[in-house]
Amino acid sequence: MATIGFIGVGNMGGPMACNLVKAGHQVKVFDLSAELVQTVVEQGAAKAASAIDAATDVEVLISMLPSGQIVEDLYLHETRLLDHLDTRTLVIDCSTIAPENAITVAKAARLKGITTLDAPVSGGVGGAKAGTLTFIVGGEKSAFEKAEPILRNMGKNVFHAGNHGAGQIAKICNNMLLAVHMIGTAEALQLGVDNGLDPAVLSQIMLQSSGRNWSLELYNPWPGVMPSVPSSNDYNGGFQVNLMNKDLGLALEAATKSHSATPMGALAKALFELHGSKGFGKKDFSSIQKLFAKE
Amino acid sequence: MATIGFIGVGNMGGPMACNLVKAGHQVKVFDLSAELVQTVVEQGAAKAASAIDAATDVEVLISMLPSGQIVEDLYLHETRLLDHLDTRTLVIDCSTIAPENAITVAKAARLKGITTLDAPVSGGVGGAKAGTLTFIVGGEKSAFEKAEPILRNMGKNVFHAGNHGAGQIAKICNNMLLAVHMIGTAEALQLGVDNGLDPAVLSQIMLQSSGRNWSLELYNPWPGVMPSVPSSNDYNGGFQVNLMNKDLGLALEAATKSHSATPMGALAKALFELHGSKGFGKKDFSSIQKLFAKE
Amino acid sequence: MATIGFIGVGNMGGPMACNLVKAGHQVKVFDLSAELVQTVVEQGAAKAASAIDAATDVEVLISMLPSGQIVEDLYLHETRLLDHLDTRTLVIDCSTIAPENAITVAKAARLKGITTLDAPVSGGVGGAKAGTLTFIVGGEKSAFEKAEPILRNMGKNVFHAGNHGAGQIAKICNNMLLAVHMIGTAEALQLGVDNGLDPAVLSQIMLQSSGRNWSLELYNPWPGVMPSVPSSNDYNGGFQVNLMNKDLGLALEAATKSHSATPMGALAKALFELHGSKGFGKKDFSSIQKLFAKE
Amino acid sequence: MATIGFIGVGNMGGPMACNLVKAGHQVKVFDLSAELVQTVVEQGAAKAASAIDAATDVEVLISMLPSGQIVEDLYLHETRLLDHLDTRTLVIDCSTIAPENAITVAKAARLKGITTLDAPVSGGVGGAKAGTLTFIVGGEKSAFEKAEPILRNMGKNVFHAGNHGAGQIAKICNNMLLAVHMIGTAEALQLGVDNGLDPAVLSQIMLQSSGRNWSLELYNPWPGVMPSVPSSNDYNGGFQVNLMNKDLGLALEAATKSHSATPMGALAKALFELHGSKGFGKKDFSSIQKLFAKE
Repeated sequence: MATIGFIGVGNMGGPMACNLVKAGHQVKVFDLSAELVQTVVEQGAAKAASAIDAATDVEVLISMLPSGQIVEDLYLHETRLLDHLDTRTLVIDCSTIAPENAITVAKAARLKGITTLDAPVSGGVGGAKAGTLTFIVGGEKSAFEKAEPILRNMGKNVFHAGNHGAGQIAKICNNMLLAVHMIGTAEALQLGVDNGLDPAVLSQIMLQSSGRNWSLELYNPWPGVMPSVPSSNDYNGGFQVNLMNKDLGLALEAATKSHSATPMGALAKALFELHGSKGFGKKDFSSIQKLFAKE
Repeated sequence: MATIGFIGVGNMGGPMACNLVKAGHQVKVFDLSAELVQTVVEQGAAKAASAIDAATDVEVLISMLPSGQIVEDLYLHETRLLDHLDTRTLVIDCSTIAPENAITVAKAARLKGITTLDAPVSGGVGGAKAGTLTFIVGGEKSAFEKAEPILRNMGKNVFHAGNHGAGQIAKICNNMLLAVHMIGTAEALQLGVDNGLDPAVLSQIMLQSSGRNWSLELYNPWPGVMPSVPSSNDYNGGFQVNLMNKDLGLALEAATKSHSATPMGALAKALFELHGSKGFGKKDFSSIQKLFAKE
Repeated sequence: MATIGFIGVGNMGGPMACNLVKAGHQVKVFDLSAELVQTVVEQGAAKAASAIDAATDVEVLISMLPSGQIVEDLYLHETRLLDHLDTRTLVIDCSTIAPENAITVAKAARLKGITTLDAPVSGGVGGAKAGTLTFIVGGEKSAFEKAEPILRNMGKNVFHAGNHGAGQIAKICNNMLLAVHMIGTAEALQLGVDNGLDPAVLSQIMLQSSGRNWSLELYNPWPGVMPSVPSSNDYNGGFQVNLMNKDLGLALEAATKSHSATPMGALAKALFELHGSKGFGKKDFSSIQKLFAKE
Repeated sequence: MATIGFIGVGNMGGPMACNLVKAGHQVKVFDLSAELVQTVVEQGAAKAASAIDAATDVEVLISMLPSGQIVEDLYLHETRLLDHLDTRTLVIDCSTIAPENAITVAKAARLKGITTLDAPVSGGVGGAKAGTLTFIVGGEKSAFEKAEPILRNMGKNVFHAGNHGAGQIAKICNNMLLAVHMIGTAEALQLGVDNGLDPAVLSQIMLQSSGRNWSLELYNPWPGVMPSVPSSNDYNGGFQVNLMNKDLGLALEAATKSHSATPMGALAKALFELHGSKGFGKKDFSSIQKLFAKE
């Protein structure tokens, strides 16, 4: 078992830290919200006095933060955590941020002899609680191998995508593709229904044909076709439109930097922004189905 | 076993008719090309003297033709087959055509007491040969049940999508969605590769994550990631860009009639047309990957 | 002055026929609605007993009808007007229809020695009333020259676009481009306003810079920037979203036939359909601005 | 006449500085390239020893730099020019950069009592040489009024868009709209030509109809329709695809920050990136016409 510092215990980080506790690790947690910290402490974690405290005397430091700016501020600028870390501590940043933020931190860390991994997750709050997240990891192979057993305490799939930043890139490629096939699925269902088809029958046909995709398999956006998914619960729970827009923003930013043309991804971003601007920002992203509904 | 007339024995219809012969049916075939007819006759089919001859004294008449205009000409205008058919003959049109063409033929047939089904297929020439096609069928339930065992001699999946025209609608919804996730997959792979990822590793990650779709599972568009698919054979074989454009044209035509908004489908059509106009019309549709390649 | 038959005197055709009367022509009108006919008769036109009557003993026959099917039915199928026309009568069809409908009528007419022109208009109901329409004409040069002075009684600009069908093609190219720059203008204004700019100031800047276009010049979609345009009248009057969708449908149909890639045009169509499906079908097309408004 | 420091005398800044010299101002120039400095010195400017030297003892300091990072480095980080500027010197940054970069510099300057303006230009190298640029200015009204006569020595139109950053926002809104109508124009011309129209005739018709826009008026993308534009010179000269992509990148970045949906702008970016990736990065942006050409 390992000693682990954990910074950022919100909707995602909280249950992740709890799963580490359950797995028997010694976990020390920090968050700007004392309330969030308290929840994890009640599950058996220790309370760190500060971010620096959380990062001291631990074998592994995990961070789960909402933006690349905050990650850079933590490690490089405001808190300057890199100045306080022991070189034996492995840093695993699970935040979804721009690849260049991840690379900036990794390079600065390396200059100080500190090893880092970028390890964004997929699977949402439900996956965080159930311990079934997918980790998509960038960094050196040897560090990846050291991190893998710990990540498996929080997730089901752990992938090594490549070098520093590769975890971020792979995640945003995946989520861009998810956005594209979710909208495509919603369009196809609406087109079918507008022409007299039953959405459940059409879903079944496409699921067993070449239209098949994860949205149809596990996350049908048409209300009532599939029980226990957000579309059957008025699009509550799940993965918010606002968060999808954040990820699509990162994808397009990466595409701009690498001069990659992503017309479908760019259109998906515009449609999700349009949808979000109509009051759906906090609904599940499969609510994009309603963008196509006739009034 | 049944007596079956088969009109249109080209790339798709030829192997389909052969599979009916193999299953033990008595099959009589007609095509404007004597050469195509000869190929099927060599497998044991009888040669019909004309379309009308093929449609005479058979329990089932199957047609597999390239356009809605040709289907209407056969049944209603030029050949006026409906004037020659026995009301006990079940008509199964397997052509991919506009839903309204299918409905026009079905209505005219019903006035004469003739029962029809629209039963477009998915699965391509490979599926036609292997007998693993998917049939998506529109028409009355009782007729569907009568047709099902015969269609199973040519395919693996047989779906009843709904009433007349529903087979066509379901197929074009499926193919529109296929076009969308294929392009989305190609964009995601290019974005990943442009940012240093290995296309096989990224494919593997997305396949086991929420980006999963049929293109990634069975038809990876990046050359060399998957053996035995068109992308690993210089995009030869498979489903031609021109045919995808035909199906997308039908989808957009249906969307225009029902005033359905299909932004991703519309963009997919434009991108496949762009791709086709650069000399890729006869390549497999997964060659859209090359549209995004950097030169 | 000429003797003129006029078939179809609705929102557009009515004021057009009145302008011909005012110019001194002898005009005989027909419409399925007796009420519409009455309005024009009150301005000095004669009332025709039937479409055939309207087309008899006139130098010029003008038709202004809502769809290609209706135009074909009038000239070729139901009314078979071509069977009743004198070869000295010049036929000018001002309907906006698919180029292939126009060509079909023109070819059938030529076989009977009858000369036709396709002459769709641009300028809307306001232009029809004011006599400031633009006519975009397809057909032979000599026929065009004969028609021109008469068209000038109803419009300000009269263009010869090319051979039969060219009038229709040029009009749908123009309207596709109009749709594209109207949406582009709406997006740019919303982006500016979301970032603190004054829509009137931004409009003024873009109007004098490279963003300039007809929408900014004469039809600003942001309410209050320009008086006397639909956006300043709750988007009433003007050119309805439904009609823009009809024209965009014709454009995409033509693009499909000629295998032309029109990504921006296709997206414009999808966005106008989306907008129409939210209850804006009968509002002016500049109401697309509201699609981008934040709620 | 004023004493002016000028930093960045490349393709754009060089001729701009020369025009200030011609107007009678005392101009001191700096650039990392001695060669570029020499060209302007030959026209009568003085040579500054450093960026700090250029900014010392001048009434106005103008900078024209290629990226927001470089602008921030100059004023805030590396050179820290703000630490060396006299509060009586008016800073005018003519670079095209993200609005947030402009605002960051403006805020830091204000803390030191220094007044700044963001004043990006439109009009390209040709406009810089001819002194016909358009300046789109953000910042306080009083500063704008002080800058205006000097800017008029380099340009024809000078607009006050609003507060700090507004110049940048207005410029990227304009250029996004330009990108949209240029592509729309190219699509419409190709669609017309594919259907038998003459591109010059179609251009003429649309120019006098509701499709009219700056691209048709002054910059027709079809080779040979208009003399003396890049399309008639193999798309050389003009405004490079790479630079359009830079501006579209800034537009989409701004849209992401303000959660504005810009579907047409996003698609325009993707299409220009696609075009650039096929070897057209250094051609004029009207070469997007070739993206739609049939091969």
